[in-house]
Amino acid sequence: MWGMVAKITLLPGKRDEMLQILEESAAGMQGCLSYVVAKDASDENTVWVTEVWDKMASHDASLSLPAVKNAVPRAKAIVSNFERIAITTPVWGVGLPGTHAH
Amino acid sequence: MWGMVAKITLLPGKRDEMLQILEESAAGMQGCLSYVVAKDASDENTVWVTEVWDKMASHDASLSLPAVKNAVPRAKAIVSNFERIAITTPVWGVGLPGTHAH
Repeated sequence: MWGMVAKITLLPGKRDEMLQILEESAAGMQGCLSYVVAKDASDENTVWVTEVWDKMASHDASLSLPAVKNAVPRAKAIVSNFERIAITTPVWGVGLPGTHAH
Repeated sequence: MWGMVAKITLLPGKRDEMLQILEESAAGMQGCLSYVVAKDASDENTVWVTEVWDKMASHDASLSLPAVKNAVPRAKAIVSNFERIAITTPVWGVGLPGTHAH
């Protein structure tokens, strides 16, 4: 598995718009095992995204999806900072297929 | 929903032990909707945990579970730093029950 944790900071007042863009662009992402989108509880302009993919190639391929390519310019217009906090190798998880439920 | 992103740094050579402790202690956590455990890809002593709970009270209650209480001293012995990178309000996610699959 391949994963990442990203911190996305939006221009003021643009977080809801970004949440909408993320949800639209996340449709039909082959190989995506988990994709959690969360608002920062203390910073109203920040969103956290934690992704788990079966392999890095699936993540890379997702960037070529029409929905994602369509979303990029809309996102760039309202993102003030995109930070890859970590690139990861997910090990297991509640909610991940293929790992035993707890 | 309530969530957090945590960065756990272990003493050298102790990451696998921590992964084992996390997996054991995560058994039977009521209200836990997603719990992704991932190794940092570039720092061999770091683990990332992204949690999603139905509500904060469920997370707090989990700390009283016997498996968790049992794990805490074992974890403390090998953790060099535990950092809550973010407290979050998860919005939706692939792999989260109750949100539509993509």
